[in-house]
Amino acid sequence: MLVLGVDPGSVVTGFGIVEKKNRTLRCVDAGVIRASGTRPFYERIHAIYRSMMDIMSRHQPQEMAIEDVFFAKNPKSALKIGQARGAVLVAAVECGVAVHEYAATEIKQSVVGYGRATKEQVRSMVRVILHLDFQPKLDTSDALAAAVCHLNWTRYDTKGRALP
Amino acid sequence: MLVLGVDPGSVVTGFGIVEKKNRTLRCVDAGVIRASGTRPFYERIHAIYRSMMDIMSRHQPQEMAIEDVFFAKNPKSALKIGQARGAVLVAAVECGVAVHEYAATEIKQSVVGYGRATKEQVRSMVRVILHLDFQPKLDTSDALAAAVCHLNWTRYDTKGRALP
Repeated sequence: MLVLGVDPGSVVTGFGIVEKKNRTLRCVDAGVIRASGTRPFYERIHAIYRSMMDIMSRHQPQEMAIEDVFFAKNPKSALKIGQARGAVLVAAVECGVAVHEYAATEIKQSVVGYGRATKEQVRSMVRVILHLDFQPKLDTSDALAAAVCHLNWTRYDTKGRALP
Repeated sequence: MLVLGVDPGSVVTGFGIVEKKNRTLRCVDAGVIRASGTRPFYERIHAIYRSMMDIMSRHQPQEMAIEDVFFAKNPKSALKIGQARGAVLVAAVECGVAVHEYAATEIKQSVVGYGRATKEQVRSMVRVILHLDFQPKLDTSDALAAAVCHLNWTRYDTKGRALP
């Protein structure tokens, strides 16, 4: 079972592919999509879509886990995050990857055991759970945490299909 | 010269195709994409993307005009509009349609002559400018107004190519 976790942002979008095999979780790939620079904003949004399409066609994850954003600092940043998130969702549905949304508190609860954990605490626990020998960026560890949360919440049959 | 105007929203997205020929503007097609209902939100966002792809492949507009949203009532509605807008931008770049963004005040100024005009005033002027014999929905007239604004601001050569 391969799950793609995503933490979308208009400047940096974190992603992580986590495999569950014999009850063990393993990080297959992880990193960030950088969409900053001087190009127009709509090209940034398209670049996020293109990168997500590449990642999904390379790894063929069955499912995607993404934070269900309800709040943002202000309407301006919400508009930016929203557009990046829209590009990620379009890519997932285009690739036939099932989308699962979790509140930030659910992800933190699942990974750290505490719904109001800091991003640094999430990263520490993600490193332990996935036996990472490197320190991921916070956007990457947030994405990996979403994937871990989804794999913790979902039960699968022996063929890797999600059980209801 | 064919220009697609779009007014994105997570429930209703307005669109309008406007042709400029011999200095005359004509509405070729206009309407709304409805993406409401009980389906999950990410499927709505994908439906907007798919509908935009259909409209662009049917009419082959050279350029797209879209409102540059800076403000929203609150972060929650900004997140929703943002995701719909992201889907529209991805579709445009995928189809090779050049994207042009205008502030709401620029669009109103260009169509009504007053940057703080109401949506109803914009609709009235759009009906006059495009000789519409029907009353479009406000989302549709906002989309048509973006296209009209773009055609008013841009000068084209005899082959319909935008002049710098």
